[in-house]
This record gives sequence, structure tokens and C-alpha cells, in this order.
Amino acid sequence: MALLFLSTPERAAVWAPMFKEAGEHLVVGEDAVSDPAEITHLMCWVPPKDLQRYPNLKVVIGSGAGVDQMPRMPDGVALVRTVAPGIEEMVRDWVVMSTLMLHRGMPQYLKQADAGQWTGHDVPRARGTRVGIMGMGRIGTLAARTLSQMEFDVVGWSRSGRAVDDFVVYGNDGLDDFLALSDILICLLPLTDETRGILNADLFAKLPHGAHLVHAGRGAQLDMDAMKQALDTGALTSAMLDVTNPEPLPDTHWAWGDPRVVITPHIAANTDHAEGARHALAVVRASRENADLPGRVDQDRGY
Amino acid sequence: MALLFLSTPERAAVWAPMFKEAGEHLVVGEDAVSDPAEITHLMCWVPPKDLQRYPNLKVVIGSGAGVDQMPRMPDGVALVRTVAPGIEEMVRDWVVMSTLMLHRGMPQYLKQADAGQWTGHDVPRARGTRVGIMGMGRIGTLAARTLSQMEFDVVGWSRSGRAVDDFVVYGNDGLDDFLALSDILICLLPLTDETRGILNADLFAKLPHGAHLVHAGRGAQLDMDAMKQALDTGALTSAMLDVTNPEPLPDTHWAWGDPRVVITPHIAANTDHAEGARHALAVVRASRENADLPGRVDQDRGY
Repeated sequence: MALLFLSTPERAAVWAPMFKEAGEHLVVGEDAVSDPAEITHLMCWVPPKDLQRYPNLKVVIGSGAGVDQMPRMPDGVALVRTVAPGIEEMVRDWVVMSTLMLHRGMPQYLKQADAGQWTGHDVPRARGTRVGIMGMGRIGTLAARTLSQMEFDVVGWSRSGRAVDDFVVYGNDGLDDFLALSDILICLLPLTDETRGILNADLFAKLPHGAHLVHAGRGAQLDMDAMKQALDTGALTSAMLDVTNPEPLPDTHWAWGDPRVVITPHIAANTDHAEGARHALAVVRASRENADLPGRVDQDRGY
Repeated sequence: MALLFLSTPERAAVWAPMFKEAGEHLVVGEDAVSDPAEITHLMCWVPPKDLQRYPNLKVVIGSGAGVDQMPRMPDGVALVRTVAPGIEEMVRDWVVMSTLMLHRGMPQYLKQADAGQWTGHDVPRARGTRVGIMGMGRIGTLAARTLSQMEFDVVGWSRSGRAVDDFVVYGNDGLDDFLALSDILICLLPLTDETRGILNADLFAKLPHGAHLVHAGRGAQLDMDAMKQALDTGALTSAMLDVTNPEPLPDTHWAWGDPRVVITPHIAANTDHAEGARHALAVVRASRENADLPGRVDQDRGY
């Protein structure tokens, strides 16, 4: 039983002593594999093409919180995403920051600052401002809690429509009602066939006029040209994007220079190396004990 | 018994019907005063020079949360500041936004965006990042609660050093210890003789190297040249200012163009007109009943 590690040397340097101390076998890089039959776990961003080389492979662990970059696993191989409280809190922090920046008109103030212009505008209150969160998983719930503690009116939307804490969560067929309540729309959805391109002209038209978009899902969910058109008509007032379409965003792309759009380069979160290692060790232990794998992905559902 | 109202027509338009409904007498503008002896309350940003004109004046209500613009009141006249939950929550929102923006390196990402540059940097966690709040009154307490809910390590500093909730609050003689714990320093102090110029070279040198400054107190507390030098030596990494010195900041000032500094034009809060009127009505009622005046200022202390 061994975990084959295909990631960066920096990360391997943190993982190796932790696996040693835990008494687990870590093999760093395919070149270091002496007996492919001993590889039971694989940790990677995307797996090598030839997984048949490892006849006893049981689990593939993706190094990110999302697994949309992953191919379908062979029969008998489980797919697991990286679950770490650090990731979830980091994304929550980025989402709360971005929500407040759009709520408080930072795009306009940043533009004014470029011109040295000291001009105040009305100050909106969080109380009475409605925030809609698409994706009420662990991260969405954390964001909902903080924004609600600040008195924003928070509602959620998820495929299941399952209530979380005291938040109203709309299900699949409540999307239009949910959108009509989203002065600020936050997207935290995983990328699946159903969510690809979901942030499009139709959706923007269903928001309250002048809404704001906070996007920390996946770039392929967003039609950036439709977003530009919504900004031009006033359907959208402003947007903050941590993911873009395409990604990385080319330096000549219109969105960089648009004062209504603030872009960060997919930095809402990264996995702390030690937390990633602890997660992988938990997965290895769970497989040995035939317990539920933490972060296990339903490959039909896609997350 | 009447309240003389010296403020904007927009605000008067909201106050008049509310006073009428409450059965209280509102006089809008000095020209409308027929009998100066009936004026017992005055609402203004700064009072007229000749307060002797109103022999029965008992209370002056400042229209802002701070009263540093106010002269010393004549004997027998109480000074009250405007206290409204709206103001406090608005400043809290600005402070939380600004703390997150500096914590997450937004000044650097905004500069990169100007150049269309997609480059990520390490993502810091709130957990383990120490935030020091100068001024643990109502606003400081709200900010401490939200930032602590997000897992920042929050400590406070105030003249009294009185503990608030479960937060450690350093007193006057604990300033150096407090500063050494402030990776992000938030200033919410009122302007008094003791706090004028408090954000100076000495203070910046006592922060952890590379600290961040969030300033929503008063401009005259900040030595902006000392801040620039601290940014140049790396003692400070970045700053967000809602108040400046001088204020408004001239369009030619170096700080507008410094990518390490983000400036908003004193918009952390403004008073909702109706909330201001409710506060004034509460003050009028309290005077009639000889009760404690809400928002009463200790003029020796200055806040």
C-alpha cells in the first residue's frame, strides 16, 4: 500500500516527513515507482494517461477543491477531492471581501482614485441588501454565516434545495425566484454539465436591475461577453471575478481595463501543503479501514 | 421647547414629518425662529457663533458620529453626538472590507490588473493573522466580532483598557504591547488632544515589520509623510484610508498614485436621515424626562 505523489517539489518536501512519521509509504514521482503493484493511492492535479499501469490503484486524490479537470476514473477507482478547512475559509474570506467591495462601490472609488477625485456617494447598508449564494456546500455555508452576521439578507440556491442552518435555500426549480432576490449574486458552484455556461444573458436578465456578480466558481460557467453586455445595459453594475473564461485571462482581454470589473488571478484559495498531506493521510487510513473516504466525489454528479 | 434644525434641505424633508407625527416642534433654519427663547435643542454640524441668542438652549446635537469639529459648549449646554446603528454597521462594513483587502493583497492585485498580469501569490489565512483595533467603542466592538468570527486573532486598545466581550483590550500603558500584536492595525479613535498625530513614525516602528494600516478615525491622527516613509522601508506593506491629512486630499497628492495605498473619500458611513431624526427625537424625549441623553459627549474627554 503506497501513495504515488505527482505534484510540486515544494509540496513533496512537506508531505514526505509527515508520511514518514505516520508510517505510510509515499512514492514521489513515477520514476521512483519500483513495483507498480504496490501503488494503491495516487495524488495529482490530473492523472497520467496510463492508469492501467497500476493494477491495485484504489483511490485518486485531486489536489484541488474541485475535480472538473479530472477524467472519468476506471471502474473500481474512487475519486476524492482535497478537503481542508484552510481552503474553505480562504474562499469565504475572498467572497466576503468581494461582496463588500461591490456593495460599497469600490470599483467606482478605485476609478476616482486614479483621477485623484475626492467625491463621496450614498452609503448603502448591508441590512436590506439581498445576497444570493449559488452553491450552498461547505464554502457557501461559511460565506452565508459571515454575511448574515453582518446583516445582509442571505438566500441560497443548490441542486438539492436542502436548507442549511436557518437560511432559505432554493432548489433546482426555484432558480428564477432565487435570482430575483439576489442584489449581489455569488457563484460558488462546481463545474458540471449542468453548470457550464450558467452565468449567461438569460440569467443576468433575471437579476434585479443593477445587480452585482461575485464569481469564485469556475471560469467555464461564465459567458464573459454576456456579462459585458449586462454591464453596458445596466443589468449588472459591477463584477468581481477570481475565475475567468478563458483562464488565465490574456493580457489584451477587455475585462482587465473595464473599471466595472475587478479581477484576481484564481487566488481565492490555495491548499496549505501540510493540510493537503493531513487530508491524504486521512484518505489512506479510511481506505485501509474500509470507511467512507473524506471528500469522495460522486462521479455521476460531478462533485 | 423646540429643536432648531441647521442642516440640508434633503434631511429636513425627512425630519419634518417625523417630528410632526411625534408631536415635537421643529424649526428649520435660523430665519424661521420667531421666538429665540423657545429653542431648547439645536441640531447642526457646527453651531452658529452666537449661541447667546438662545437663552434656553439645553442641548446641541452634532450630526456626525464624531464631534471634533465642535467648539466647547457654553455652561449648561450639553453636547450630544449622533448615535445610529446604521452608522456603526456601515463603518464596520468598511473596516471589514478594508482589512480583507489588505490581508489578501488587493493593492498588489489591482496594480497587476492595470497591466493585465495574471500572477498569483501565496494566500494568507485569517487564522493566525493578528488584528489590532484602536478604539473599542461600539464600532470597534462590531468590527472585532465579525473579524473574530472569520478567525482573525483580534486584540483591542482603548484609553480605559476595559474588556469587551471576550477580547483582550490593552489600556493606555499597554500601547507598545498592543502594537507588537497588530499585523493589521485598525484605527477607529475619536480625535482628541491625545490622539492627534498618533499614527506617526514612532508608532509604525512598533508594529510587526510589514504590517498593514486601516484608518477610519480622523485625518489629523495620521502623519502621511511618516506613513510614506514606513511604506518605503517596508515597515508598512499597505494602507487603506477613509480619512486623510489634509482632507479632502488634493488631486495632486502623492498618495492617490501610490499603489500601496487605497483611498476612499470619507465614505465609511453617512447618517440615514430617518435614523438621525429618531436619534434627535430620543434626545428631546430624554431631556424632557431628565433622563441620560443618548450619545452625550464628555467634553473634557472629547468623545
